[in-house]
Amino acid sequence: MPSPDLSILIIDENRIRASIIEEGLREAGYVRVSVIHDVQEVGRTIQQSEPDVVFVDLENPKRDTLEHFFSLSRAIQRPIAMFVDQSDTSTTEKAIEAGVSAYVVDGLKKERIKPILDMAISRFNAFSRLTRELEEARSALEERKIIDQAKGIVMKTKSLSEPEAYALLRKTAMNQNRRLVDIAQSLVTAANLLGP
Amino acid sequence: MPSPDLSILIIDENRIRASIIEEGLREAGYVRVSVIHDVQEVGRTIQQSEPDVVFVDLENPKRDTLEHFFSLSRAIQRPIAMFVDQSDTSTTEKAIEAGVSAYVVDGLKKERIKPILDMAISRFNAFSRLTRELEEARSALEERKIIDQAKGIVMKTKSLSEPEAYALLRKTAMNQNRRLVDIAQSLVTAANLLGP
Repeated sequence: MPSPDLSILIIDENRIRASIIEEGLREAGYVRVSVIHDVQEVGRTIQQSEPDVVFVDLENPKRDTLEHFFSLSRAIQRPIAMFVDQSDTSTTEKAIEAGVSAYVVDGLKKERIKPILDMAISRFNAFSRLTRELEEARSALEERKIIDQAKGIVMKTKSLSEPEAYALLRKTAMNQNRRLVDIAQSLVTAANLLGP
Repeated sequence: MPSPDLSILIIDENRIRASIIEEGLREAGYVRVSVIHDVQEVGRTIQQSEPDVVFVDLENPKRDTLEHFFSLSRAIQRPIAMFVDQSDTSTTEKAIEAGVSAYVVDGLKKERIKPILDMAISRFNAFSRLTRELEEARSALEERKIIDQAKGIVMKTKSLSEPEAYALLRKTAMNQNRRLVDIAQSLVTAANLLGP
């Protein structure tokens, strides 16, 4: 459940439309809402105020402005809901690829702000979870490859069996209070540097 | 780009609202649009007609109906756009978790249908790609584990070095025209069955 403590930043050059979003949020019980009207300042503002969620309303943005906000969306790693008045297929696709959590075309009205906030947060969480799982799976595979390489080096250099080589790596890691994969990586690096 | 050939199924008990969606699609150039009004028949209809995209409009659905469509969303593996008139935070979260590609609260209007279709397709594709990458990474890790186990068995049983054991597995796979991991899996299974 989104907490009413959530800090929310609204970015909107149009003051009337900004106030629609603001009203929608206040009526839903959110009090930590701030608004900026200068879309150029947005990167710095986000760095300084660290909002939990960002709303961006762009009406009919130029391509440059859109691209700017798409890169922002990639960079900020938080839920972002974006309103535009129109969009074509390829722009919509770019928005989704940039991780915009809610991309709302021609749908700005006060009553919809709360459900759109919920949606942006849920979508962001679902996407983050999947991305994290993917990173974990990929790094587990990478680590396993490095440990295998290191094992091979130990087996060959010290004429050990596979379990013996593994035990030696593990013991070294424990003694040095480091992760097994770090020991393995050191060994692989050293072998590449010093090897034939 | 979504092609105008896309076959689209609209599910809506309310004929007026169904015609809003239908009109929106037709004006956007989509001609392969069909409508069903009986939400109970939906599973069978989807199986028979195999639409590329599904639109569901539920107005104010009962919890049961929603749950039904959420499981449907999980099952059908295609873009699904869902319209409801209201939603709370936890229902929205469930919709996203069920893989609903576009969950639109209080936002049904003809002009929005095309952008929502684009969004549902982009979102579905992004999510599918990520899910597929996750499955690939996980299965690569699993395969590596199985191959490692098999290598260990060969090394021990035949007193071979690690590269020799790997070469033997590879050669066996090539001779039998099977994947290395399948040979490895057979070996691990046999060792578990026959081993001490």
